[in-house]
Amino acid sequence: MRRGIATVCLSGTLEDKLAAAAAAGFDGVEIFENDLVVSPASPAEVRRRCADLGLSIDLYQPFRDFEAVPPPVFEANLRRAERKFDVMEQLGTDTMLVCSSVSPDAVDDDDLAAAQLHELGERAARRGMRIAYEALAWGRFVDTYDHSWRIVRRADHPAVGLCLDSFHVLSRGSDLSLIRTIPGAKIFFLQLADAPRLHMDVLQWSRHHRLFPGQGAFDLTAFVGHVLATGYAGPLSLEVFNDVFRQADPHRAAVDAMRSLLGLAESLGEPAIAAPELTGHAFTELSVDETTGPQLAAALSAMGFACTGEHRSKPVQLWTQGDARVLLNATGGPAEISALAVASADPVRSARRAESFHAPVLPREHRADEADLSAVAAPDGTAVFFCRDGWLSDFTPTGAVGVTSAGAGLRGTDHVSLTQPFDNFDEAALFYRTVLGLQPDLPTEFAAPFGLIRSRAVTNPANTVRIALNVALLRRGEWAPGVPDPQHIAFTSDDVLASAKAMRAAGAPLLEIPANYYDDLDARLAPPPDLLAALREYSVLYDRDEHGEFLHFYTEVLGSRVFLEVVQRIGGYRGYGAANAPVRMAAHRRLRLARRSG
Amino acid sequence: MRRGIATVCLSGTLEDKLAAAAAAGFDGVEIFENDLVVSPASPAEVRRRCADLGLSIDLYQPFRDFEAVPPPVFEANLRRAERKFDVMEQLGTDTMLVCSSVSPDAVDDDDLAAAQLHELGERAARRGMRIAYEALAWGRFVDTYDHSWRIVRRADHPAVGLCLDSFHVLSRGSDLSLIRTIPGAKIFFLQLADAPRLHMDVLQWSRHHRLFPGQGAFDLTAFVGHVLATGYAGPLSLEVFNDVFRQADPHRAAVDAMRSLLGLAESLGEPAIAAPELTGHAFTELSVDETTGPQLAAALSAMGFACTGEHRSKPVQLWTQGDARVLLNATGGPAEISALAVASADPVRSARRAESFHAPVLPREHRADEADLSAVAAPDGTAVFFCRDGWLSDFTPTGAVGVTSAGAGLRGTDHVSLTQPFDNFDEAALFYRTVLGLQPDLPTEFAAPFGLIRSRAVTNPANTVRIALNVALLRRGEWAPGVPDPQHIAFTSDDVLASAKAMRAAGAPLLEIPANYYDDLDARLAPPPDLLAALREYSVLYDRDEHGEFLHFYTEVLGSRVFLEVVQRIGGYRGYGAANAPVRMAAHRRLRLARRSG
Repeated sequence: MRRGIATVCLSGTLEDKLAAAAAAGFDGVEIFENDLVVSPASPAEVRRRCADLGLSIDLYQPFRDFEAVPPPVFEANLRRAERKFDVMEQLGTDTMLVCSSVSPDAVDDDDLAAAQLHELGERAARRGMRIAYEALAWGRFVDTYDHSWRIVRRADHPAVGLCLDSFHVLSRGSDLSLIRTIPGAKIFFLQLADAPRLHMDVLQWSRHHRLFPGQGAFDLTAFVGHVLATGYAGPLSLEVFNDVFRQADPHRAAVDAMRSLLGLAESLGEPAIAAPELTGHAFTELSVDETTGPQLAAALSAMGFACTGEHRSKPVQLWTQGDARVLLNATGGPAEISALAVASADPVRSARRAESFHAPVLPREHRADEADLSAVAAPDGTAVFFCRDGWLSDFTPTGAVGVTSAGAGLRGTDHVSLTQPFDNFDEAALFYRTVLGLQPDLPTEFAAPFGLIRSRAVTNPANTVRIALNVALLRRGEWAPGVPDPQHIAFTSDDVLASAKAMRAAGAPLLEIPANYYDDLDARLAPPPDLLAALREYSVLYDRDEHGEFLHFYTEVLGSRVFLEVVQRIGGYRGYGAANAPVRMAAHRRLRLARRSG
Repeated sequence: MRRGIATVCLSGTLEDKLAAAAAAGFDGVEIFENDLVVSPASPAEVRRRCADLGLSIDLYQPFRDFEAVPPPVFEANLRRAERKFDVMEQLGTDTMLVCSSVSPDAVDDDDLAAAQLHELGERAARRGMRIAYEALAWGRFVDTYDHSWRIVRRADHPAVGLCLDSFHVLSRGSDLSLIRTIPGAKIFFLQLADAPRLHMDVLQWSRHHRLFPGQGAFDLTAFVGHVLATGYAGPLSLEVFNDVFRQADPHRAAVDAMRSLLGLAESLGEPAIAAPELTGHAFTELSVDETTGPQLAAALSAMGFACTGEHRSKPVQLWTQGDARVLLNATGGPAEISALAVASADPVRSARRAESFHAPVLPREHRADEADLSAVAAPDGTAVFFCRDGWLSDFTPTGAVGVTSAGAGLRGTDHVSLTQPFDNFDEAALFYRTVLGLQPDLPTEFAAPFGLIRSRAVTNPANTVRIALNVALLRRGEWAPGVPDPQHIAFTSDDVLASAKAMRAAGAPLLEIPANYYDDLDARLAPPPDLLAALREYSVLYDRDEHGEFLHFYTEVLGSRVFLEVVQRIGGYRGYGAANAPVRMAAHRRLRLARRSG
């Protein structure tokens, strides 16, 4: 299948967009009219540029408000079309997208619409071109694909066919089965977009919130399956209007877009390197410097971790407790999560899959006797390692008890939470979905003291790998008094209260939770008085969903933006304690202020 | 009327919010529960803090999902309420907001709802408290104010009354006349919010897009007029959920909020310093340095301006052509619009009004024999001067011809266009509305090459003062290749083609518009061939609306972000050529790239 992208998906001038689409490996583009209009390159020059870049021009779009109009308007519209055919001729493209009319000039008359489209088809055919008619979901009279198909049939012209756009079809909740009744040869073009489920005006939904396939809630696999079953053999072409993508680096967005089509192709049964099973979090690496290194080491120690290994060739310490493992990498820089490692049933294949999904492979230096860990860069720059147990032998045991000691009762890693760069939140969810084969949850939103936060977790089926992705709903400005871009690692305990008690006794820098929280918790969820008293005493937070309970506590911020969490899931609790996050954020902010003034 | 604000309107911790509300002069606050829950201050401490700040606590909110539930849930809800009464007692506040239920536990039974609210009223009364029942616009069974009033009447308890919220009432398009039938004493609380007209789920509309009164499309004056006619004597209290305000500096947002209530009070007939008539743009001042000063002077000169005056005591030049006046202020810094001056029928009163609306008054140095121009700072930092003709005598005439010369045919200033800081776009529209008495148009949105742009003009009734406010729909990130925060001055010409010709002949740095634009213009609007040829020859752009036509052209960017425009309005054209802005933006970007690589 050929892969295309509409220039409107990407930010920048036409020149920026074409370069980005070609670099990401697209076969063709749809030229969005406005992108051409603002360009100093003539259509003939654009044609040559595309040829040089190896891009076909698959569609010229959009041509609006054409059909079902009174004769004088029809004459003017034909003139307008001929001018655009002139442009298309120079561009060397043969298909024009005609959207169903939203004009007040239009009348509700399918016969007239069909007759006028027939005439347009006649004009197009004379020039070796064709018309792809599309029902906009907010078209004045034609707003469903089946209606547009009735009109195309009635137009009865070989140069008049359909354009199907997944957004327009799926946003209307249309019955998809009728698609299979359309002859594939009459589907002239296929545009793809995903979207979150939103309850809003469909025009606004379409113009602002479309996403690349796999980032939203639509079942693109089913939709495209129906279309391919007709024998459609044209390109799968993305047409995504998205406020963020419109102003983000087009080179990154184009790679994200290509990854979405690779994921879609896999879901449609195209051969791909299958994602090996991931079995858990192997380790999380923190980069530390002279100040934060000792701070993290002291905190881990007080939390029951032991430094059980020193890397053979690098300034990296391994800290362990049960199956919870943290590397402190003294490469300098403030404390931040520089890498997360997932245990893979087949690390080599995981890495090959990642590469096939255009994940940037990170260069690695290792000695001949050390494990060759493959790593790719996630959208936020975090290194993602695929490993099995072999990597542990790169560390010289210190002799410290750790792996076998009880410590403070930590068993392993529950999740890693990473704030994403604003432009890359949807890209990140798709990255983890395609590259690692994880499943994104539905995105959620909550009000934090300094603005709204979007959150979306990606998990494996066994829930042994959990990565929580967070981003401010709006890019932060100057008033940003919270912890900047916080990151944390959450460890599991089977008895979070006992863990908290042990860690407090050992002097761990645990976060104090205010009394108001417990008064509110009592009012809201009324936990048993003994439990409430214990939660209050140890500054442990509590949440509940229909599946189970969640007890958790936090450390203070260590360095500028990293902290640690200990969690206990009772029953099948699925969340991450989002209801309690604002309490944590306000507490972290207070400490920050106190330290600045202290 | 007492003025209040809900803490949820402002960003930060409870401590930040209270300080900001007090500094802006509010009389009281609504404590939003989550703000208290995350605070380390006990309710008694919050009470003392508010007392120290001179703030009353007028409401505790929200209490959700209380009424019309089966007995066991009712018992639990009463327990929950008692816990919150405990908090209110310590806070020293007596009114609790109860929102209509959205719970799946609730049943559609007004009698049960009324009976349970009666019991809650009984409990509240025992503690000297009362219940303000509010219909959420998305309440499960109670979603209009008249329905909530029926239930309150049926509850028939002195401690059970209504809370009216302008958003919930106006978003539903309810008939307002019924409000006057409610006894004022039964309206326990009044919450105010404006909003733009959006076609979306009312819950999302409410949670993300509320605005302060005067910033949106709702008729708050009519609504509050009805409520005050009942004899309601409680506070006018703002409750605004807004994505931007939630993460913006709370001190600024609180001043903006207060300004909205001052504007509302004026519209309700409270005494205010009336806004004097504004008669035009007196001048626009550009700050320039050693590089940009000569660049601007050369451009103005080639555009037919003459340097007609030198300031008596400051390094400021006056450039004039007809009634178009530009000051070049050599105070250093890159070229930017540092001030705009409006001609006022009464500058002293304009300044007094500005101050009464909390506009920051700028300190001015002037000699005894110079005009005492009053200036205030607009939200983007631009100085706004109020003046009459006297200010011209501060300039020593150079003897150059200018005011009387034809120059290149410019007559005056059509508009000044200012990119606003992201956090202050709605604040700015309200600032110009209240402080200057200008009228904001409806906001518009258009797609620019590097993202969506929101635009909103403020004008005087005679359209002799026009200020266009622009902002990126999302705060710009790193991929920002366009001109950063562009600003421009648009001058009027009665023959824009002749002006363009003259300026080109004089070597003015005019912006070249690509041929594709004219091909598209021909297809879209089909201007007469002679006109089209002339537009194309002189790189003049063209637009048309139902009132008239618009011809305009631009200079290149002078310095880092300023450019100039010449416009001709034919007939009653009302816009600003937004359809052509993307062409200009792409052209400016090309020049920028060419100069970087050149």
